[in-house]
Amino acid sequence: MKALLLVSILLLPFTASAQSKKALAEKLGYPKDTKLLIIHADDAGVSHSANAAIIAAYEKKAISSAAIMVPCPWFPEIAAYAKAHPELDWGIHITLTAEWKNYKWGGVSSANEIPSLLDKDGYLYASVEEFKKHAKPEEVRKEIRAQIRKAMAAGIKLSHLDTHMGSVYASPELVEIYQQVGKEFHLPVLVPMNMIQLMAPQMLPYIDTMNNVIVDQFISAYKAAPADQWHVYYDQALDRLKPGLNEMIFHLAYDNDEMQAVTIEHPDFGAAWRQNDFNYVTSEAFKTLLEKKGIRVITWKEILATL
Amino acid sequence: MKALLLVSILLLPFTASAQSKKALAEKLGYPKDTKLLIIHADDAGVSHSANAAIIAAYEKKAISSAAIMVPCPWFPEIAAYAKAHPELDWGIHITLTAEWKNYKWGGVSSANEIPSLLDKDGYLYASVEEFKKHAKPEEVRKEIRAQIRKAMAAGIKLSHLDTHMGSVYASPELVEIYQQVGKEFHLPVLVPMNMIQLMAPQMLPYIDTMNNVIVDQFISAYKAAPADQWHVYYDQALDRLKPGLNEMIFHLAYDNDEMQAVTIEHPDFGAAWRQNDFNYVTSEAFKTLLEKKGIRVITWKEILATL
Repeated sequence: MKALLLVSILLLPFTASAQSKKALAEKLGYPKDTKLLIIHADDAGVSHSANAAIIAAYEKKAISSAAIMVPCPWFPEIAAYAKAHPELDWGIHITLTAEWKNYKWGGVSSANEIPSLLDKDGYLYASVEEFKKHAKPEEVRKEIRAQIRKAMAAGIKLSHLDTHMGSVYASPELVEIYQQVGKEFHLPVLVPMNMIQLMAPQMLPYIDTMNNVIVDQFISAYKAAPADQWHVYYDQALDRLKPGLNEMIFHLAYDNDEMQAVTIEHPDFGAAWRQNDFNYVTSEAFKTLLEKKGIRVITWKEILATL
Repeated sequence: MKALLLVSILLLPFTASAQSKKALAEKLGYPKDTKLLIIHADDAGVSHSANAAIIAAYEKKAISSAAIMVPCPWFPEIAAYAKAHPELDWGIHITLTAEWKNYKWGGVSSANEIPSLLDKDGYLYASVEEFKKHAKPEEVRKEIRAQIRKAMAAGIKLSHLDTHMGSVYASPELVEIYQQVGKEFHLPVLVPMNMIQLMAPQMLPYIDTMNNVIVDQFISAYKAAPADQWHVYYDQALDRLKPGLNEMIFHLAYDNDEMQAVTIEHPDFGAAWRQNDFNYVTSEAFKTLLEKKGIRVITWKEILATL
């Protein structure tokens, strides 16, 4: 594993959206300046290893939210657990890419309905670049709706929508579709404002800040660190956390044969990475730091209830 | 694991097909009464665990043939290996069912082209009974062709066709389609004569014994045994092997987290079963017994070359 230095968290000053955030804390019964934090697991359904780690993290009360990749082969396993646990937070991790080398999936829609989303082998494209190059917006809308409906048909009580690899932020049309589908299904959508400001500022005019709950600080590691330094990035993020709505993203799985094979040739977000994330999020040290810093852990379901 | 007694191998007397079998031995340059044996691994592509075990068995020269499940999520992994190893035997394990509880796949064709093969969630049916009840023959033909074409497009040199869970033997129309598609792609199809005589004698009139290479004795365990007795069924089958064309089927995988989760609630053909099969087929004892009994191990590729 590369011993890269941890990169500091992106913490940008409040923007126009701060107003609605303060309102959120108050709506939830907390003082205006509360530091709200969603502790979120991405990629439920991608593999058995991920499902098992996410279920374990929920059972340890280490996370407050998770989002499901509906087109993935292990969707039925997490769907059965989610149906049995409607008290937990289950979002749709809108999945428009299939990024791994040796393990693939297509869309939920019939292939003839979403030809622009599929490669020559019938799988979703491997990268957001390829997806962006080919995707027709109305086929994206169709596939997002199909993923939501399939999860609902499986008996899952949904809490929110978010986006695998940020693909819905690839173009203004897709940003608008994402928000429209959220409204259509009466589900909040993740709008990670600091990320958009930094990575996709050209999308800012298309964000409906009045009608969406904005996540001011979206915290997601993007470079690996040595296992014994894994905590530094997250600890610093918590140290510097500001009042408002924050979401911390973890990629949970076990560092086992399956996950190593899924993430082959891709140490970033690889099997060891996910094990390190699991070890951190389930650690006593993390729990203690949250308490010490007076951080209020919330769920998307609580946000949904305010809408 | 249930300590069930091993059940004796099905060894039925030669039928009309014996003639062509003797011819096969001679065509391959062996005496008429040679005991020919294909040592075959099913279910390549179903999981990483299966792929890894099949590749290991090939690298130990423990098997002579394998067949690939094209619609499965791990197809790209085995396809890459198969493309790199055209000297090995790669059949299509025609897959028209998705039998596991928590891990699923659909067809290769666009869903709108094969609606009769898919359940309400868009997956292949879980059982041959459900498949048989719904499947329209022309959609089966379309899907079988799509699986073959996808494997060819992935650069795999094909050696034969066979059938996952025997689904193509579910009706006379399907038996005919199976044989027709074999001819269409100039590939031999597995016709396990002893199994058909015993399990599906009503299909006998539809078997083209003149134009197919018939496997007289198809040997596949169907009840688990204690690990230390695992060898008994196979050893007895080898003891009683007769001249003609024989095929011994193994379900190879490692008994690890992934395979245990794939085969959950299904000890038959479960993870421990597959590990036991792997241990047996790669054992020195198996190799020694083959030699001692004068059994000639052959491939489907050699058969293909005689056609």
